[in-house]
Amino acid sequence: MKLPQTVALDDKAKTLDIIDQTRLPGELVILKLSTLSEMCEAIKLLKVRGAPAIGVAAALGLYCLSERYAESDTGTFLTRLAADGEALNATRPTAKNLSWAIGRVTAAAAAAASGGVGAVKDAVRCEALKIRDEDIAVCKAIGVNGEGLIRSGDAVMTVCNAGSLAAVERGTALAPIYEAAERGKAVSVFALETRPLLQGARLTAFELTEAGIDTTVICDNTAASVMASGRVSAVFTGCDRVAANGDAANKVGTLMLAVLAKHFRIPFYICAPYSTIDFDTKSGKDIVIEERDGEEVRSAMYKSPAAAPKAKIYNPAFDVTPAELITAFVTEKGVKSPKNL
Amino acid sequence: MKLPQTVALDDKAKTLDIIDQTRLPGELVILKLSTLSEMCEAIKLLKVRGAPAIGVAAALGLYCLSERYAESDTGTFLTRLAADGEALNATRPTAKNLSWAIGRVTAAAAAAASGGVGAVKDAVRCEALKIRDEDIAVCKAIGVNGEGLIRSGDAVMTVCNAGSLAAVERGTALAPIYEAAERGKAVSVFALETRPLLQGARLTAFELTEAGIDTTVICDNTAASVMASGRVSAVFTGCDRVAANGDAANKVGTLMLAVLAKHFRIPFYICAPYSTIDFDTKSGKDIVIEERDGEEVRSAMYKSPAAAPKAKIYNPAFDVTPAELITAFVTEKGVKSPKNL
Repeated sequence: MKLPQTVALDDKAKTLDIIDQTRLPGELVILKLSTLSEMCEAIKLLKVRGAPAIGVAAALGLYCLSERYAESDTGTFLTRLAADGEALNATRPTAKNLSWAIGRVTAAAAAAASGGVGAVKDAVRCEALKIRDEDIAVCKAIGVNGEGLIRSGDAVMTVCNAGSLAAVERGTALAPIYEAAERGKAVSVFALETRPLLQGARLTAFELTEAGIDTTVICDNTAASVMASGRVSAVFTGCDRVAANGDAANKVGTLMLAVLAKHFRIPFYICAPYSTIDFDTKSGKDIVIEERDGEEVRSAMYKSPAAAPKAKIYNPAFDVTPAELITAFVTEKGVKSPKNL
Repeated sequence: MKLPQTVALDDKAKTLDIIDQTRLPGELVILKLSTLSEMCEAIKLLKVRGAPAIGVAAALGLYCLSERYAESDTGTFLTRLAADGEALNATRPTAKNLSWAIGRVTAAAAAAASGGVGAVKDAVRCEALKIRDEDIAVCKAIGVNGEGLIRSGDAVMTVCNAGSLAAVERGTALAPIYEAAERGKAVSVFALETRPLLQGARLTAFELTEAGIDTTVICDNTAASVMASGRVSAVFTGCDRVAANGDAANKVGTLMLAVLAKHFRIPFYICAPYSTIDFDTKSGKDIVIEERDGEEVRSAMYKSPAAAPKAKIYNPAFDVTPAELITAFVTEKGVKSPKNL
């Protein structure tokens, strides 16, 4: 089944249309968002998630919001746009793309200020659509560049979801897999289920199998034994923020895969657009790691609360993989060593 | 709260009394088992689990069963005992203790054959009680021997449950922690939740917090980042079967912890009685790894099926950690190098 775009603009209704990822794989539901609180909630509750997708969602969302502003004074219009951008940006702290996309839209708006509110609105629309179109093009380029790292017969391991559901189309880590499959290579995937919210089991396995790609779900703790069995040719993951020194923050479990891949001599690739690289952040130590509610681990997905009631829970959403464990970054500009980003 | 024994004999009713571990941490339920099918089901469905506990359960269970045999001929009595032993042994293939305990009971019975059925019954009872009492003593000794590896202030990481719920009392991997706490050392534990059946979140976190020990549950994929943060002093796990060369099969995720511990220079200890060592099995490659139903991963614990319906699932219950990744075995005979078992 061909899936609709993960994040789309309904330009007539001025709504941000997203696939509600919390309902997958059970139901494919499109949400039409028109208010700031709906958009913030959608990002916060991971109805839309994945670094590229939330960047595009924020940009298109800001456009939809700004179309409803009654303000006719350019200054107050820009102030409101900035405030809405701030609110969207505050929903999740780790992903670089979110602040980057919002920054682009508000900067484009500010640059058009001398032309009045009409010019500002045009600038917001153009920049938001540009961010969306760039995402599609960048993911395609990552796929083409990464495809060369996959041989026919390979099995690739991945964590979380850095596929089409994490972007507008195709995604980052899964883009080379889609590209390889389209070019006739036999490629299969081991998808880590990715506790606590199961983006691997629910989303990666869903979009890959809908595209006809042979996919096996494993518990996160099973990655080592699958690697030890010799069945894994490469690891491909996405990433939420890359520091200037090549350290990369991604879904918790990525560091585990990188350490295991090194031990088992398996190449470890991070697929990410250049917009993910934060040259203002020196190293991974400076990346803020979002810590989420322990109930996500204890009870969110389970029939009955799993963890013993008196136990504490530690639930970081991300971990940081040091540059030296990363074989290469697969970007829209090519396959890059962490030392030469 | 002081928990009852995990596996106990009601010698009046001739029943095997077990804590139903599938109901924890929600409810503390004692099952009184008297038939072969009840006992086999209890082991197969992990109502009783953990290598030492299922060994003791099989031994006490065989005794309870044999007390109900109508056979007065020694030969047919022994044949029936052997058949029941075979049926119990077939429930789970990986743990060494199961076949070891059953073998001890049937051998003791056979050795008493010349004395008639009465003598055989006495021998079965004595051997079964001896296996139980040895388990209690061995776990205590493992605790005393391992306690020296823990300093006050240490945080220990563990996977699955190798505590009192995996033995009669106290357990293997958790025995040094209980011993250290009793001797006044401040010790805390990071318990991996241990997908798919959550023995870490449900059982380890339950018994440790009931004993007043500071316990934090993490998703399995979070072990690497907790280790990277410098908060883990040592890893202690149990084990289901050790090969003659020191390779050890234990709950899937153990190999992951061993590789990560090596990378982060954290000592990695396996706590196990000598009965777990299978000198007839040359290396880890010769250990049969139980593969369990994929529905355990897809849906057993979750509110709705997690993995996309078209995805395959790979669900091995165990993995094999090579001897070179094991700092030492903590046994009832002392702390032993894998090379000198």
